Amino acid sequence: MFAPIYLDHNATTPLDPEVREAMLPWLGGRFGNASSRHEYGRAARMAIDEARARVAEAVNAHPTEVIFTSGGSEANNLFLKGAAARLKAGALALGAIEHPCVRQPARQLRQSGWTVRELAVDAAGRIDSAAFTAVLAERPRLVSVMLANNETGVVQDVARLAAQVRAAGGWMHTDAVQAFGKLPVDFRALGVHGMSLSAHKVNGPVGAGALIVDKRVELAPLVAGGGQERDLRSGTENVLAIVGFGKACQLAAARQADRAAVLRGLQARLDAGLTGLGATIFSAGAERLPNTTFFALPGIDGETLVGKLDRAGFAVASGSACSSAHPEPSPTLLAMGVTPECARAAVRVSLGSGNTGQDVDGFLEAIAQIVDHLRNLTAMAVGVADAA
Amino acid sequence: MFAPIYLDHNATTPLDPEVREAMLPWLGGRFGNASSRHEYGRAARMAIDEARARVAEAVNAHPTEVIFTSGGSEANNLFLKGAAARLKAGALALGAIEHPCVRQPARQLRQSGWTVRELAVDAAGRIDSAAFTAVLAERPRLVSVMLANNETGVVQDVARLAAQVRAAGGWMHTDAVQAFGKLPVDFRALGVHGMSLSAHKVNGPVGAGALIVDKRVELAPLVAGGGQERDLRSGTENVLAIVGFGKACQLAAARQADRAAVLRGLQARLDAGLTGLGATIFSAGAERLPNTTFFALPGIDGETLVGKLDRAGFAVASGSACSSAHPEPSPTLLAMGVTPECARAAVRVSLGSGNTGQDVDGFLEAIAQIVDHLRNLTAMAVGVADAA
Repeated sequence: MFAPIYLDHNATTPLDPEVREAMLPWLGGRFGNASSRHEYGRAARMAIDEARARVAEAVNAHPTEVIFTSGGSEANNLFLKGAAARLKAGALALGAIEHPCVRQPARQLRQSGWTVRELAVDAAGRIDSAAFTAVLAERPRLVSVMLANNETGVVQDVARLAAQVRAAGGWMHTDAVQAFGKLPVDFRALGVHGMSLSAHKVNGPVGAGALIVDKRVELAPLVAGGGQERDLRSGTENVLAIVGFGKACQLAAARQADRAAVLRGLQARLDAGLTGLGATIFSAGAERLPNTTFFALPGIDGETLVGKLDRAGFAVASGSACSSAHPEPSPTLLAMGVTPECARAAVRVSLGSGNTGQDVDGFLEAIAQIVDHLRNLTAMAVGVADAA
Repeated sequence: MFAPIYLDHNATTPLDPEVREAMLPWLGGRFGNASSRHEYGRAARMAIDEARARVAEAVNAHPTEVIFTSGGSEANNLFLKGAAARLKAGALALGAIEHPCVRQPARQLRQSGWTVRELAVDAAGRIDSAAFTAVLAERPRLVSVMLANNETGVVQDVARLAAQVRAAGGWMHTDAVQAFGKLPVDFRALGVHGMSLSAHKVNGPVGAGALIVDKRVELAPLVAGGGQERDLRSGTENVLAIVGFGKACQLAAARQADRAAVLRGLQARLDAGLTGLGATIFSAGAERLPNTTFFALPGIDGETLVGKLDRAGFAVASGSACSSAHPEPSPTLLAMGVTPECARAAVRVSLGSGNTGQDVDGFLEAIAQIVDHLRNLTAMAVGVADAA
């Protein structure tokens, strides 16, 4: 089968062969419910404990601070709704460019009396300092700001924001799903109360994630029941995915610096090529993830371009993958003050460990051809219209 | 490695080789975010759609009624909390022997103004008809009664109960996690509004389950975000586990009758042997799952017996696996009026597709030796005490 070049690593990533090796025994003869008090159960428990230690070490947390979930969306929901359920309703503040799995639970919390404050971003997508300080004056009990944005790749200074939130007496959460593996991520140094991770964004399996949580934070479980994960997440543990997650975290942390250097080089090449084609690169003026380039070619619809690139053998995204089902312009771009027309032109390339300079060059060639073709069509259409 | 004989299939089951075959490509080169609009995304979407059709067919539901979750616990939480969030707070009724992942969310709902009514069971563990009718007079908005109990294996007449609940204007949910694969399970014939399933109880992978839900039921999502699963369960779909779940459901439905006949034979042999050793078999007078035998040997502690059986090479459970971390006597047995002393003696054997008559005979021999040994020790201790 012809395999398209995959340039959509912020949506999901292929499994690392070492992660697969770690998982295979649990798809083979090994199985067990970690709550069972026999050999099978103990083996599952040990595998989960080992994975928990690996996840903790990768982000400088303590293993008891790691709550395994089914993924990043659940981790974000668990922190926001779980903490809100233990607090008196008040103000909740979140970045204007948060992922839907932060924005939607916040919206649900309005029904329980919470007030949601959006933290405005500047034109490059960074949280606006003055807006942040103003919102902090309302003493929000909960604040959530993502470490790196899934679409633009913009990195926020979460450590600084967290210090301010702590000083104001709130609980600070960060969605580190996109940052982890691409930047150094240190739970302790960030000084946040909660942090979400996902396995499948770091060459691990879909189906595992974690909420790293300061034990002083009280949470109510979303999934209540048998009492797994310190009673914060019930349900038989997904050993297969958790084992893969542990291995993926270990590899991601160990390889992060080298990988980022390589990606940074590819990104520069990509950005230069796109700029040469007349593209606007969003958040070009801010610190971005080393793998993410969100751009627009004026007058060319993003959805159309993604479709044509797909047929040309390149897999990229038009908006964030999770909301590609809803082809509205990206809320991230709108929050940055980008016009809806320009936002509709947006296309995201997110590079990963398997990509090469050849992939980038091939992509630039393909896009140049498509752009030429589309502009010729437009010129012809204009010509026809003129002649008519 | 010496592999103990596994007799704990109600806790979890080994993966069926055909399920593993179906999953392996997704642990190999295949990957993709089903929301992505490119070749990788479409392939993931197709695999999920195929699995959804298989799950639906296995339980006589429509594919659009299948909401994939991370497992049975999440499915139960989703129905109860998700439906409650859309209703005016009122009465919620549930069986006194429900799994903790039904009892705990119900307990959480008390904080939102819900009144929880427990449906009493008789000495065999069946919902008491008079108690049920009395509770229905309070017009509960939500009722949840499990199709088969994880500990005793007792089967409830959910179709009859559901008809009464519908007539009373409530929404009826059933936890079919333990019943599916062991009994015929027909969503339409049961007439329930919601039904929970889990993959890893039917030789599928951990990490996938489903809430089968009548579309007239409005639910709020537990995990809100990108809008997957008709906006009822956000988060990148776990294609690997969902594909395995689909295959496992297909096999479970196709093999159910044959498997149940074999299991029923093994169960009769087991029950006869245990009775011969002086055991009490709980719920012996009721319809039970063909694979489950929950018993007590008078005067012998269940935890001790499970530990000794483990060392002798037999994996069984003392309580339900999920609550084995909390060694209180089984709430199921207490609800049936069993004394705490007798409940502390309880041991559960749950057979599965890999078990043979030899396994059962070996288990009976092992337990006979352990019982002899423990009774001799007791006799000696009594002798020593007499001599003192």
